[in-house]
Amino acid sequence: MVYIGIDLGGTNIAVGIVDEKGNILATASTRTMAERPYQDVIKDMAMCALEALKKSGKAVDEVHSIGVGVPGVARAETGVVVFCTNLGWAEVPLREEMQKYINKPVHIDNDATVAGLAESLFGGSAATHSSVFLTLGTGVGGGIVIEGKPWSGYHGIGSEVGHMTLIADGIQCTCGKKGCMERYCSATAIGRMGREAMEKYPDSLIAINCGGNPERVNAKVVFDAAKAGDKAGLQVFHDYVKYLSLGINSIITFFDPQVIVLGGGVSAAGDFLLDAVREAVPKLRLFQALPCAKIELATLGNSAGIIGAAMLGR
Amino acid sequence: MVYIGIDLGGTNIAVGIVDEKGNILATASTRTMAERPYQDVIKDMAMCALEALKKSGKAVDEVHSIGVGVPGVARAETGVVVFCTNLGWAEVPLREEMQKYINKPVHIDNDATVAGLAESLFGGSAATHSSVFLTLGTGVGGGIVIEGKPWSGYHGIGSEVGHMTLIADGIQCTCGKKGCMERYCSATAIGRMGREAMEKYPDSLIAINCGGNPERVNAKVVFDAAKAGDKAGLQVFHDYVKYLSLGINSIITFFDPQVIVLGGGVSAAGDFLLDAVREAVPKLRLFQALPCAKIELATLGNSAGIIGAAMLGR
Repeated sequence: MVYIGIDLGGTNIAVGIVDEKGNILATASTRTMAERPYQDVIKDMAMCALEALKKSGKAVDEVHSIGVGVPGVARAETGVVVFCTNLGWAEVPLREEMQKYINKPVHIDNDATVAGLAESLFGGSAATHSSVFLTLGTGVGGGIVIEGKPWSGYHGIGSEVGHMTLIADGIQCTCGKKGCMERYCSATAIGRMGREAMEKYPDSLIAINCGGNPERVNAKVVFDAAKAGDKAGLQVFHDYVKYLSLGINSIITFFDPQVIVLGGGVSAAGDFLLDAVREAVPKLRLFQALPCAKIELATLGNSAGIIGAAMLGR
Repeated sequence: MVYIGIDLGGTNIAVGIVDEKGNILATASTRTMAERPYQDVIKDMAMCALEALKKSGKAVDEVHSIGVGVPGVARAETGVVVFCTNLGWAEVPLREEMQKYINKPVHIDNDATVAGLAESLFGGSAATHSSVFLTLGTGVGGGIVIEGKPWSGYHGIGSEVGHMTLIADGIQCTCGKKGCMERYCSATAIGRMGREAMEKYPDSLIAINCGGNPERVNAKVVFDAAKAGDKAGLQVFHDYVKYLSLGINSIITFFDPQVIVLGGGVSAAGDFLLDAVREAVPKLRLFQALPCAKIELATLGNSAGIIGAAMLGR
């Protein structure tokens, strides 16, 4: 049996045919064009899935189930997408619509949650009791997995790590609150802190490497400067590590998972980031004598979305 | 069958004989005198349990199991108390020691966690899928229950809600970090904010009701002033509700339980507090269109510790 995994994004739809060991046998992708009626988007998802299936040499009879990771909130029991801000979707009957084209069980969950599921099955948190996956990108997403099962909470609105409060009355967030973790722990936050540092240190490597153009300051520019020992770069890096470690500490303090996995664009910094976070987090522990969550890097990259979606039906 | 529930505190040991419906059939208590060797404390716990059992008219043969709620961290598999700061305990073989006197299965968990379990079985969060119990007292404790089972995390250090960060770089906490939720959401925090308000408003009801003595300012004095419409009292009350609601929001954003239960001394304010928190929390939701956790008051009071401990073996 094989599993169809669909990663539904605001820009692209990526589909993979996945075996039960998490290997992607074939892929296909198409543009989302989210401004269309949802029926058209879902039809294209199905066509894309059938194309990938054909490439894999498997038949529809050999498909166990279809899983979809969506950038929003889904209702598992009914297969309805409750809410996807950047697709403009609300109460979309994704399962029902998909089954018009491929009549198999359809499972739906949040995209960060399914990526966390993939990492917990085959990646950075493989074979663990419990894990929290963090996507450190434009925003900060989260995926909680308990004993191999994704946890999105009772109302399906959990694991939104990026909107836990880190500084009450802090920086204004897009969600309406102030001081959300996302405002201090995302790639966007590194860019902001980098621009502030550049203003303060106009001779810094950050300024040189982006030609003094604030628009070119991003997480990579800042971290590269830090790696080279640049004072401004290091200052932003240390602030970032401090905030991220405090956020991770809050997750440990509340939930105490076995492993925390760092993914998303910022995690491309690899050991440079990992080593610093691994040093900072244990110092924040409430019980200094006791062990706490290991921190690992995600290993599946962009494939996590497809693999995790596929595994929803496993 | 009956269950022995033991609430081990820094000052007192309280024991109850509990039936499977959560009724306390008989109780007994004694002083902890924690400065003694742990063997003596545990012997007294056992003697106290036998005394309560006798009062209940039940025989040892009718005891299903013994449960103990401890003010610290326990290792469920081995029955060892890893850590109890205010008892001065570390690596205490509580199960083994207890079974010298009463040879029954012994289950141990954190005191706030077992109180949360009691509320989830018979109290404010009865018959729910998932709940988080908050004790708002001298500090802020937490108890997570998922599908009727207490969750203390993989390393047994979770549900320490009071030490989630609410304001990075905020007020110094006893744990070594700054800006922990406990510093803004405990009864202690209300006292501190009340004293600050009294200095600013020397004519306030807070000042009058405590005779201008800062040492007499506590949560009750401040909330009574707020209930009477006093400006200083209301200011502290509103700040407190804001911080508590932000803390609750972080729990909802991360974990999304079905219910959040407010217990501990501060929750004695009843509907005055509950109504304000119920109004504030939904406004902080990430997904305004979707439901989030209900907020309830604890109903079992101090009995929750005994009942929850007893139910650990159920």
